[in-house]
Amino acid sequence: MIAEFLRKHNADFIILHGSSSNANFYYATKFKTYDPLTYIAGIDGSDILIVPEMEKRRAERESRVKEIVSLSDLGYMERLKETKDAKKAYLDILVSVLKEGRCRKLLLPEELPTYISFELMKHFEVEVVKNPFSTLRVIKNSSEIEKIRDTSNAILRCFKWAVENFSFKTCEELRRAIELKLFSEGYLAENTICSTGKSSADPHEIGRGEIEDHVVVDVFPRSLDHLYYSDFTRTIFVRENAELKEMHKAVVEAQEKAISMIRDGVDAKDVHQNVKDVLNSYGYKTEKGEGFIHSTGHGIGLEVHEEPRISEVSVELKKGMVVTVEPGSITQKSVE
Amino acid sequence: MIAEFLRKHNADFIILHGSSSNANFYYATKFKTYDPLTYIAGIDGSDILIVPEMEKRRAERESRVKEIVSLSDLGYMERLKETKDAKKAYLDILVSVLKEGRCRKLLLPEELPTYISFELMKHFEVEVVKNPFSTLRVIKNSSEIEKIRDTSNAILRCFKWAVENFSFKTCEELRRAIELKLFSEGYLAENTICSTGKSSADPHEIGRGEIEDHVVVDVFPRSLDHLYYSDFTRTIFVRENAELKEMHKAVVEAQEKAISMIRDGVDAKDVHQNVKDVLNSYGYKTEKGEGFIHSTGHGIGLEVHEEPRISEVSVELKKGMVVTVEPGSITQKSVE
Repeated sequence: MIAEFLRKHNADFIILHGSSSNANFYYATKFKTYDPLTYIAGIDGSDILIVPEMEKRRAERESRVKEIVSLSDLGYMERLKETKDAKKAYLDILVSVLKEGRCRKLLLPEELPTYISFELMKHFEVEVVKNPFSTLRVIKNSSEIEKIRDTSNAILRCFKWAVENFSFKTCEELRRAIELKLFSEGYLAENTICSTGKSSADPHEIGRGEIEDHVVVDVFPRSLDHLYYSDFTRTIFVRENAELKEMHKAVVEAQEKAISMIRDGVDAKDVHQNVKDVLNSYGYKTEKGEGFIHSTGHGIGLEVHEEPRISEVSVELKKGMVVTVEPGSITQKSVE
Repeated sequence: MIAEFLRKHNADFIILHGSSSNANFYYATKFKTYDPLTYIAGIDGSDILIVPEMEKRRAERESRVKEIVSLSDLGYMERLKETKDAKKAYLDILVSVLKEGRCRKLLLPEELPTYISFELMKHFEVEVVKNPFSTLRVIKNSSEIEKIRDTSNAILRCFKWAVENFSFKTCEELRRAIELKLFSEGYLAENTICSTGKSSADPHEIGRGEIEDHVVVDVFPRSLDHLYYSDFTRTIFVRENAELKEMHKAVVEAQEKAISMIRDGVDAKDVHQNVKDVLNSYGYKTEKGEGFIHSTGHGIGLEVHEEPRISEVSVELKKGMVVTVEPGSITQKSVE
């Protein structure tokens, strides 16, 4: 796939630099690392991962990259002693690896750090490209869908457990119950939204204090094992409130409309427009920063927010994409 | 501080782009965000943070940046409709903000994504610089030291709890006990090393299976509240083993030697050399990828590994730096 991309761009190599918190880097290497490493893939299908000596054996065991080379193998320590500058020594190593591979033209993914790009462009013809791995990531294979489903099942199970087994008066208690249960099962959720009252209309307000008539829960856990995310939203009604019930009805109808539309070949923009139409039909605003101010949904995978977006922008939805559908946050402004 | 840095480089602005998992971005903005945002600081002491409309109110409440502007304020949606390219529209916005500020020369931190740098260099004189915030971060103020101490106290407490209250036969059980206890107190540790037997000599082997004579524990938790890390290493002896005891004695002596040397004005390289001397005096190897193959320690703060390193490279240690001292991993090779 990458070789094909390189051929299309008439290039010999592409270079990635990141830690496993960089989704493209992890997707390409399947190697977990805190410290950023460099990965280089060639048009002949070869690829190498450059690691510190102490990571070499683990990389050979765990990564999916064909060739693991250590900085020592590449003479890094000698370069470092000579230059007394770790960044310079590292860049020298990268240039020599690429020269040894007879690189003529090199692709630089958009997110590559500037200091690497500015050095490499002195030695090779370069082209900045959208990272081909982020394009590959948009369509999930069955193993990836299984992983997203696994994380989704975990939050369904942990949310049910938290609501049934826990008495909570505050947003903080509910958040803690959900996050702790998830963590005990091997999933990490941070900044879980449990927000109540008027502040629940602020899409990224995490929520605090005593729960009023309702609480909006938005959890986006990832598996600590396979690293795939889910994204989960529910509204819990604690007390009867006709106004809130009406808002909830509108949001559920909008969500069901969107889900019924989503299939291979549909334009995401049309889905978003239909969500707005439903909310408008209930009298809620959807324009100019009032009422429904965010998008309908987004892709999910190794990142919690990834392509495609279901928003104002036209994008063809395709088989194998995994997206959230989460209309909501009809602000108080709209109903005053 | 940043204004001074800009003056020194004869530049008008510096631009940062990242999420709060980027330590420099968080240090500059004190704003927690999953999605990457742009921060611009000017020579006149002004600074702005550009956020999506739905984050504006939260950013005004939570960040330390003087001016919060939303993408809508800057006409992003109109640019997006015109260009139909989110990246292009975003870059147009950045260029217009900088032009409005009458930018002539702009500093690009080394880690800035290439697509931003390559666009901005078309419009402004640019210079790639080491991120000044990463330099500021090396010296901790008292509030930061308090935060690192807080996380350190948490792991001391949770480790003691896990060892005293938990019976564990496997590396996995011990890891789980420590990580769960930490999480329940608001600290996240991932990939905690609990390794046993020969594999404990592999510095980044996470460890698995039944605990043999000893287990090496290395935990690097961060607070989910203030985001500062600690880094903690202990060896637990489960059964008597003379060879292991001797290795442990050497490592402790090397560590004590290093700690006794560390003070304002000392060269980190000398500290590292003294650690190697102690290990050599016990007959362990410290060169050429055998025996003690990693550095003595590293700075800690908003990143688990940050400057300064205590290694082969000469660096003057200064008051306010916070470093780990963790010699170890005398591989089996050395003692065969």
